[in-house]
Amino acid sequence: MAPAQGLKYIGTRPVRPDGLEKVTGRANFGADHAMPGMLHGKVVRSPHAHARIRSIDTAAAEAVPGVLAVITAQDFPDRTNFSFGRKGFNENLLASNKVLYHGHAVAAVAATSSEAAEAGVAAVVVDYECLDPVTDALQAMSPDAPILHEDLITQGLDEPPTKASNVSRKQVISKGDVDAGFAAADEIVERTFVTPMVHQGYIEPHACVGNFNEDGQATVWCSTQGHFGVRSMTAMAMGMDEGDIRVIASEIGGGFGGKTTIYLEPLALKLSQKSGRPVKMVMTREDVFRATGPASGTVNTVKIGCKRDGTIVAMYAKLIYEAGAYPGSPLGPGAMCIFAPYDVGNVLIEGYEVVVNRPRVAAYRAPGAPQSMYAGESVVDELADRIGMDPIDFRLHNAADEGTRAAYGPTFGPVGLKACLEAAKAHPNYARPLGDDEGRGVAAGFWFNGGNQSSAEVHITDTGMVKIVEGSPDIGGSRASMALMAAETLGVPYERMRIRVADTDSTGYCATTGGSRTTFATGLAVIRACEDVIRQLKSRAAATWEIEPDQVEWSDGEARPVAGVNVEAEPLSLAALARTAGRTGGPISGRASLTAQGAGPAFSVNLADVQLDRETGRATVTSFTAIQDAGTAIHPDYVEGQMQGGAVQGIGWALNEEYIYDDNGVLDNPGFLDYRVPVASDLPMIDTQIVEVPNPNHPYGVRGCGETPIVAPLAAVGNAVSHAVGVRMTELPLSPPKVLEAITNGS
Amino acid sequence: MAPAQGLKYIGTRPVRPDGLEKVTGRANFGADHAMPGMLHGKVVRSPHAHARIRSIDTAAAEAVPGVLAVITAQDFPDRTNFSFGRKGFNENLLASNKVLYHGHAVAAVAATSSEAAEAGVAAVVVDYECLDPVTDALQAMSPDAPILHEDLITQGLDEPPTKASNVSRKQVISKGDVDAGFAAADEIVERTFVTPMVHQGYIEPHACVGNFNEDGQATVWCSTQGHFGVRSMTAMAMGMDEGDIRVIASEIGGGFGGKTTIYLEPLALKLSQKSGRPVKMVMTREDVFRATGPASGTVNTVKIGCKRDGTIVAMYAKLIYEAGAYPGSPLGPGAMCIFAPYDVGNVLIEGYEVVVNRPRVAAYRAPGAPQSMYAGESVVDELADRIGMDPIDFRLHNAADEGTRAAYGPTFGPVGLKACLEAAKAHPNYARPLGDDEGRGVAAGFWFNGGNQSSAEVHITDTGMVKIVEGSPDIGGSRASMALMAAETLGVPYERMRIRVADTDSTGYCATTGGSRTTFATGLAVIRACEDVIRQLKSRAAATWEIEPDQVEWSDGEARPVAGVNVEAEPLSLAALARTAGRTGGPISGRASLTAQGAGPAFSVNLADVQLDRETGRATVTSFTAIQDAGTAIHPDYVEGQMQGGAVQGIGWALNEEYIYDDNGVLDNPGFLDYRVPVASDLPMIDTQIVEVPNPNHPYGVRGCGETPIVAPLAAVGNAVSHAVGVRMTELPLSPPKVLEAITNGS
Repeated sequence: MAPAQGLKYIGTRPVRPDGLEKVTGRANFGADHAMPGMLHGKVVRSPHAHARIRSIDTAAAEAVPGVLAVITAQDFPDRTNFSFGRKGFNENLLASNKVLYHGHAVAAVAATSSEAAEAGVAAVVVDYECLDPVTDALQAMSPDAPILHEDLITQGLDEPPTKASNVSRKQVISKGDVDAGFAAADEIVERTFVTPMVHQGYIEPHACVGNFNEDGQATVWCSTQGHFGVRSMTAMAMGMDEGDIRVIASEIGGGFGGKTTIYLEPLALKLSQKSGRPVKMVMTREDVFRATGPASGTVNTVKIGCKRDGTIVAMYAKLIYEAGAYPGSPLGPGAMCIFAPYDVGNVLIEGYEVVVNRPRVAAYRAPGAPQSMYAGESVVDELADRIGMDPIDFRLHNAADEGTRAAYGPTFGPVGLKACLEAAKAHPNYARPLGDDEGRGVAAGFWFNGGNQSSAEVHITDTGMVKIVEGSPDIGGSRASMALMAAETLGVPYERMRIRVADTDSTGYCATTGGSRTTFATGLAVIRACEDVIRQLKSRAAATWEIEPDQVEWSDGEARPVAGVNVEAEPLSLAALARTAGRTGGPISGRASLTAQGAGPAFSVNLADVQLDRETGRATVTSFTAIQDAGTAIHPDYVEGQMQGGAVQGIGWALNEEYIYDDNGVLDNPGFLDYRVPVASDLPMIDTQIVEVPNPNHPYGVRGCGETPIVAPLAAVGNAVSHAVGVRMTELPLSPPKVLEAITNGS
Repeated sequence: MAPAQGLKYIGTRPVRPDGLEKVTGRANFGADHAMPGMLHGKVVRSPHAHARIRSIDTAAAEAVPGVLAVITAQDFPDRTNFSFGRKGFNENLLASNKVLYHGHAVAAVAATSSEAAEAGVAAVVVDYECLDPVTDALQAMSPDAPILHEDLITQGLDEPPTKASNVSRKQVISKGDVDAGFAAADEIVERTFVTPMVHQGYIEPHACVGNFNEDGQATVWCSTQGHFGVRSMTAMAMGMDEGDIRVIASEIGGGFGGKTTIYLEPLALKLSQKSGRPVKMVMTREDVFRATGPASGTVNTVKIGCKRDGTIVAMYAKLIYEAGAYPGSPLGPGAMCIFAPYDVGNVLIEGYEVVVNRPRVAAYRAPGAPQSMYAGESVVDELADRIGMDPIDFRLHNAADEGTRAAYGPTFGPVGLKACLEAAKAHPNYARPLGDDEGRGVAAGFWFNGGNQSSAEVHITDTGMVKIVEGSPDIGGSRASMALMAAETLGVPYERMRIRVADTDSTGYCATTGGSRTTFATGLAVIRACEDVIRQLKSRAAATWEIEPDQVEWSDGEARPVAGVNVEAEPLSLAALARTAGRTGGPISGRASLTAQGAGPAFSVNLADVQLDRETGRATVTSFTAIQDAGTAIHPDYVEGQMQGGAVQGIGWALNEEYIYDDNGVLDNPGFLDYRVPVASDLPMIDTQIVEVPNPNHPYGVRGCGETPIVAPLAAVGNAVSHAVGVRMTELPLSPPKVLEAITNGS
């Protein structure tokens, strides 16, 4: 399965299939669907961060003119006998017992207008018994902290696991003997780093329309990264068979991991079931901030020891990840990724997940890795400083490569870390002399990439057009990359490809778009479905020529007899074979479904230069270089776009973004004015350099490229700021007050 | 491929998949789709039946407030070099040169409201040069008739084909020596019969929404019997590649053949292209009558000779079919079917198609056969009378059977005509004594049934539900029949089937639903797709048990090792295998695409009793018995429903329905008040008896059952009325004035 040589379409940069519709505004997003008779649904949210629900009285709400349905958790299947995890998932959708964060949903109202629905929301009476909130992970771990879940007793903690705590998980990864390693070290650096809870900042709020029919079957339109996942989760919440729900994915205005779960869909369906009408629900921006899934805030301690020659001998981390109100943080991938760039014999990673009175976290691009690797790459940087070694050389000296066994388990095949480091070293941006108040940071990033289940169908029209059907919502160019791989496989121009993300009833199962799995796994299904088509094309040509199918080869978009077969035959193109398909056996369609194995891990190296304003403490990124092993770049524009987008989000996380809670556990900055993501004027052009070390487990060498870009920027920017200030800074965001404080007080 | 014995689901009568949605009103029909910013399109129609278009001035229309687009034929590809047939198809959509019937479309207007569109229609100025219309086939054949198409020169007419005429086609079918046959006959009957132009009378008028995007791709929502056909025809009219059009079929409120072609779709798309907005077009009932495709009026002469013992020795027919304004009548099938029930050595059928200033005809249930077989079965009836033989015995004596070579070509396999005749003979309705002024008629019917291209995909959910996806609009129960065949093939209950008619982008090609092909051909694709699923289920089970796939059998919904394989293995159900699919190789999906061969011809025998009101001339059907060989009846309720529906439509055609034109070629009765289809109070219960002679070319023996039911009622009712009156009547409809005239004057 070595990547094909002499590629014709892969690696080109054609116009994206969805481009024109998005530019003209014709594309339909989550909130753009409407149905006759549709109601508007609104959510009643908790004004308290931590409280017991004594009762909910919906009578007044039901009496509001225009209100046709009010629901509470009582309308859903009884959760008494659910597993802890399943109960938590459902409680997060609609609380029955306790509210665990400010904005937690407790009821929902559907009415003939938004205004009536809001009046209904205001009329729902909830009797709360308020409890002390705890929104900070370290406080939540203290023995006298308020307990969120009285039934959360976690195995593997130091104390005997007999009583409830807020620590919901402990995880350990180890390799070699870390104590012996540190004993042999010449230099050791140990520091603790804090990263804030941040939001993905997708532009499009969550939105859906639910329609529940009298025959017990339902349809959901929504903005999601995985409509098959929405189907399963909604079915579970509703107590339905997933086969009775059809989910139609709209175009998506950003997700970045945050649209891999559900908030509104079961509420809309239940309101529809109760009212007999379709129900639309759209979040406000404030709802999105208060009650969807941000990224974990973390407190991570890292200790690394090395020899004087730069050889790292031991790496240790203690990771503490906030899960929000219910377990489910990306502690696991954070622990997997932190030391993956280094070929080191002695590694120990201890991880703790902690529940706090904040919204339940969700995935955010390479979930968990930016936080842990911010800590890891900061200490690596400091250690390189300490021994006086160039930070790239230091990393090259210890870099993981083909054959390295990562602490989290696998032994790498060909990987591109060294190539990225060498590219960084050679990059003109790394040679540019720094001016006054400038600092430069280097950091490596890593994501293992995903595989999972995918399906695809390919239908050939009479006119020889190629209709590709698959079930992976396109969050970052997967339609373009799949059309290119199909064009390459079939030998038919990209312009003849038409690709559609079909609903859950109309195409085979595809797991959620995430983990940088889609171009790899769904792409593999598309390639296999095209091969199924080619099999048929060869057999049609063989029948035409009265030879055997194995005497026909398919190359450059045409069937021709293999060398040595003695037959007079002009090559037959896909278009020619399609035109006569009705007479040669019927329509030509192919399909494939698979569980993709062999995802290719992807490393990156980022360079960041920052300029300090010593009066205000503002750090401005003046140059940013993203270098990444994407495996084969199917559509390089998109790969570069992913690298740029990840860099920008990482810069925001490093410099500005944070959830700010008051003492009552109320988020103070639930809007884009106070939660400030970087805008174009904050940023330099993000320079990109794609390194292509093909993944041997994919026909065209795809690795996946959407996650890795966000991993290194936090540390690259953090290291740059620390160098510019002259003080090692350890708490994100490196916002002006903190930087000014460091400049002023030197700590 | 003998039909399976011991069927479990096939032959049962479960609730239809689309039943509840239709009962509750949730089902969406053609006019139910709406889009934001949508315009309303209206058609400018000719007030003349025959005229040359000198010019069309759209300036005033374009100036009407709210009008955003006006189109004429000039907006479509130039037709100069089109073939005659293609030109006619396009001219029928929008005339550029001549209007050929009253109501012919000449322009279309899109505006922000229906009212504005109507004002725009009124403001379009068309300068016509009026020509004499000819709306009658015999007149149109006369040498001095006005000529519709100056470039219509038909091969094979008696005169040398050097000058234009209104005869657009001649067709001959022959077998043996018909002159010798008649020479050997003891009795000969020859008569000429007239049948009127009639409409299918579907309840739902044609409706669509067209949306043309800036990227040259378009979407059409419409009510149709074949959205893949709409795609091809619309692409042809627009000058687009069909791959650039996605067609979504709504639920359909009746079609009966009339929705196998297009009228509005290219107009809506062109208006959308010009205005940049989606455009909705909905016909009025009057539009439907004046300008869609009714069934051909015909003038058919039949001459049959037999021996005194009842042996038919020669059959001759001269068929004249009106095509309406452009060629395309069902003369061919009319000629194929007329004498198919009889095993006769000498047959000659001469057919003529004639263009007249009426709307272009379209398919109507067994297109062409009811008209020709009305003539044929009337003469057969009279001949039986003449030799004093029971009409069923007479037919039994001459009945086609397995091995009979039909005049139109094929040699029949097992067919059910004799079984139907015997069932008729034995039926209690045939034994009921007739009262005063009652008459009884017998007639046979025939339709060859269709095959053609179909595709299907089958996806298994994690929960073991079976999602069937196909592209055949369900006009009479095909979703139910396919779900039953899938249930039978997989051995999984019908209740676990979910079936969807997907759009043209999301499923493999399926030819138009018509010709009674769908349960046969698309059903075959569904069965083959289920077999593809079973192959995978067996291979997953084999991997689980560590044996070879060919050591696994699939029976009764479970995989089990074949007898003799020495392995400890509990049977694995589809649900069990589906649950673990992600771990055993990925999602389970199947597909099939094929050109179905071996459709099974279907015979019917109908018995009709009528009661005359001698004062008014009204003939009332008092008993009607429809007996038909359906092959295996997959869902018997639906088969009976088809038989009843066809009988009712045939009774309407026999007794009441007709297009009435004035001297100017204007239809006088374009509405259901004056064009009176039978309603429940006009009818007796239609008794049905399904005969099941399985089609050996289908795994479950399906023949197809939607066409045949309308073929025999015209002659059965006609024979009954002739017997009741005591005069052979030869012109449909047998409406009160005609019957009264026959009663009064004896002719």
